[in-house]
Amino acid sequence: MLDYKLLEALAAVVDQSGFERGARHLGLTQSAVSQRIKLLEARLGQPVLVRSPKLAPTPLGRRLLNHVLQVGLLEHDLLDQVPALGDSEQRLRLAINADSIATWWPPAVGQFCTEQRVLMDLVVEDQDVALKRMRDGEVAGCICTTPRPVQGARAHALGSMRYRALASPAYVARHFPEGVTHQRLATAPAIVYGPDDGLQHRYLAMREYHAPFPHHLCPSSEGFVRLALAGMGYGLIPERQAARELAEGWLQDLDPKSHIDVPLYWHHWRHGGQILTALTDHLLTISSHWLAPMHENPEPGSA
Amino acid sequence: MLDYKLLEALAAVVDQSGFERGARHLGLTQSAVSQRIKLLEARLGQPVLVRSPKLAPTPLGRRLLNHVLQVGLLEHDLLDQVPALGDSEQRLRLAINADSIATWWPPAVGQFCTEQRVLMDLVVEDQDVALKRMRDGEVAGCICTTPRPVQGARAHALGSMRYRALASPAYVARHFPEGVTHQRLATAPAIVYGPDDGLQHRYLAMREYHAPFPHHLCPSSEGFVRLALAGMGYGLIPERQAARELAEGWLQDLDPKSHIDVPLYWHHWRHGGQILTALTDHLLTISSHWLAPMHENPEPGSA
Repeated sequence: MLDYKLLEALAAVVDQSGFERGARHLGLTQSAVSQRIKLLEARLGQPVLVRSPKLAPTPLGRRLLNHVLQVGLLEHDLLDQVPALGDSEQRLRLAINADSIATWWPPAVGQFCTEQRVLMDLVVEDQDVALKRMRDGEVAGCICTTPRPVQGARAHALGSMRYRALASPAYVARHFPEGVTHQRLATAPAIVYGPDDGLQHRYLAMREYHAPFPHHLCPSSEGFVRLALAGMGYGLIPERQAARELAEGWLQDLDPKSHIDVPLYWHHWRHGGQILTALTDHLLTISSHWLAPMHENPEPGSA
Repeated sequence: MLDYKLLEALAAVVDQSGFERGARHLGLTQSAVSQRIKLLEARLGQPVLVRSPKLAPTPLGRRLLNHVLQVGLLEHDLLDQVPALGDSEQRLRLAINADSIATWWPPAVGQFCTEQRVLMDLVVEDQDVALKRMRDGEVAGCICTTPRPVQGARAHALGSMRYRALASPAYVARHFPEGVTHQRLATAPAIVYGPDDGLQHRYLAMREYHAPFPHHLCPSSEGFVRLALAGMGYGLIPERQAARELAEGWLQDLDPKSHIDVPLYWHHWRHGGQILTALTDHLLTISSHWLAPMHENPEPGSA
């Protein structure tokens, strides 16, 4: 069998982003952890960690971490049957898009986590790239916009997040007094999440606008809403996240007749143990309460 | 003089995180941008970009980017005096901690940005590490917990963010029925922002608790509050962010008599042009409205 003491040291150093913190986490000295990783690399004849510019696992290291996570999930199942073996609290590392974390994810999974004694390690990741984390074996599940699962995983359609172009009434009066026109879009500041904000581009394409536009950059879901509330720009915001702001009239819909739906899929390891299966069942049961139905009706995938 | 066409290509590629997007941003072909950067590197005899594993500027590249940003700020001042030269919209890249973006920053700067026609590129950064972004020349200003400015910058005390340990009433009844005890802290799940969450450790140290504790990881300000609302754990949340949740009784204070104050300092380049000076004046005028007074009274620093 593999030497799990060595793998555990690798996992701790990566999880805790450093040798010192990893060692503290394991209750070991830094030099003990360092030796374990050196021994692991000597046995494999290859490095498992890149030390600079930033501490990160090599592709081999990632495969090992993936394996450690899977073993952990299987151990959890075993502990359910043989509770005397240890504590049955279970960690799940999941990549969830920022807008889901800021809206439906916590209330949707809160009770499940409490009842099943699950602790979540959430990684905030753009829905378009979360799948990369799955492929790299860094997370046991993710939410993303792609229906196609990676090797060894399954994917299920959950529903759509509905986005609307929102701004404060003062902003609308100032920048779009006669509605949203191409001329105004060229000068009205938008709020975008990052340099590659697909939603903003989809919105402008829907309006057949393809020229440059001024924009603030704000890679924070909550900050996004607050910038809009402060009258700094208009932005594509999940309807659900701004329900109160819309109801109170603090934010206003630029296009009440249209919206953008972003489909969300739940991806998880195929052999991830009972807890991942239970979470999947739970998500499929409750997702329609939190997300809009999808227009397409894609088959659940498997790879 | 330096060839600013080349520097502009470098800035676009880094800002837009890619050659293709950088080229699109400049309205050039990818190969034209690529050639400009190769020419820049040939003239300098050193690389300005690391291409893998991730596109990033080298230390030399960072110094050049810093310079381009500073020139941009000075150009803005010039355009104010000679408006015919061009559009006077101005971008400011700033590193702001997630909790500030989720609370006081947008309402505090919204009107200023609108009036001064400032577009913000916000980088969400832990208050403890934002200063590194300043040192690397990636941002023109930042909010962090350190009073000491980096070389070429100034720092000003703004005030403190007040944090309280909050959880849902159901969670409190379940995990802390007889108050917060060491025995309960060992089993009650906390919510922490990252593996190195200084606030959580300060809170536990305040309670003289130094043993392990179960926790969820959630690197999102908004998600943090939502996980607490969903009854998944207790966490240290800015009082201001949870004002409504506390007033409505959705969240409950574990220690109404104590809190943790985190001092915040505004750092900015010393020669960053008028707009940065105006923003600094504005922040110093309005910060007491948004932040608690500091206990210490440190001198504004300068380096």
